[in-house]
Amino acid sequence: MTHGISTVAVNDSAAEHVTRLTRVVADFPVDGVQFSDLTPVFADGPALAAVIAALADTDHQIDLVAGIDARGFLLGSGVALALGVGVLPVRKAGKLPPPVHSQSYDLEYGMATLEVPSEAVVLHGRRVLVVDDVLATGGTAAAAVRLLRRCGAEIVAVAVVLEVPGLGGRALLADGLGSAQVPLVCLVPA
Amino acid sequence: MTHGISTVAVNDSAAEHVTRLTRVVADFPVDGVQFSDLTPVFADGPALAAVIAALADTDHQIDLVAGIDARGFLLGSGVALALGVGVLPVRKAGKLPPPVHSQSYDLEYGMATLEVPSEAVVLHGRRVLVVDDVLATGGTAAAAVRLLRRCGAEIVAVAVVLEVPGLGGRALLADGLGSAQVPLVCLVPA
Repeated sequence: MTHGISTVAVNDSAAEHVTRLTRVVADFPVDGVQFSDLTPVFADGPALAAVIAALADTDHQIDLVAGIDARGFLLGSGVALALGVGVLPVRKAGKLPPPVHSQSYDLEYGMATLEVPSEAVVLHGRRVLVVDDVLATGGTAAAAVRLLRRCGAEIVAVAVVLEVPGLGGRALLADGLGSAQVPLVCLVPA
Repeated sequence: MTHGISTVAVNDSAAEHVTRLTRVVADFPVDGVQFSDLTPVFADGPALAAVIAALADTDHQIDLVAGIDARGFLLGSGVALALGVGVLPVRKAGKLPPPVHSQSYDLEYGMATLEVPSEAVVLHGRRVLVVDDVLATGGTAAAAVRLLRRCGAEIVAVAVVLEVPGLGGRALLADGLGSAQVPLVCLVPA
């Protein structure tokens, strides 16, 4: 299924590092889930540099990187640095001081809310690259996209390291966000 | 009070950005606390670059950067990228898949536990720079130092953007960690 999404950008070197270093853990955080632990990828200097370079490899103008709480932060600031822009933390509820804009959503194991500052950072008209580590159901990424759009941002793409097959994340970004689908960049497609 | 800590490295450009962009919020996350919101600093491209360059400005050999959950992640990966090394997320309890090493501690508003992987990432003998956004009581930073030392790491320094005066964080890193005190690098000293 392509769902009409723009071409996936695969960086061989980054993908090789990720495939070599990712640790798959069974039954975490709940029974039946296979968790892809990218900690060894992040902790390896050449792997981190290759992954960040690949995530930042876009022909589009980016004004701001949005990192999703919390593992997306590890990639977001590096990608922002590589692109010469700032990073906005898209945070779980209650972590940011008021005032905030918030967006609730269903996620893989429950329900959650994301928040961004509503006054401290200008989002209107800015071209934003959303970064996270793994795309699973896509619920979190889609909520981040909805939230940032409500603040007036243009979402250039969602960029992740890995996607978990069979959970519908790719389809959600393509078909579940109204008329404006979001290109997905995934370094190691399922 | 100097507590015998090594000289604080002040980077004028970074400090100027931080002072200009930090938003002070009263009574967050609890009444009576003045919260320094660095979100506008992170979201500004030149400020983020200056802050990360200043945090990475060390004469010591660094093998790994440790970012403290969660705002330390935003700085940690950028600092790691600037130093050409990887970043280790020092996580709150329950976020990392097993097996982990853990360390509990008192913090400003309650109690918490930090965790690092016990097998997936080699820490023994590695020179680690611990990075976080704000040093308050120092409880979290000190727990991260203790945890990483128990894993065999050598802590080169704790580097933060801001310190909150009057909460004892600087003294804790100097006097509260046994015989081996930890140098503190603070871009904007209190």
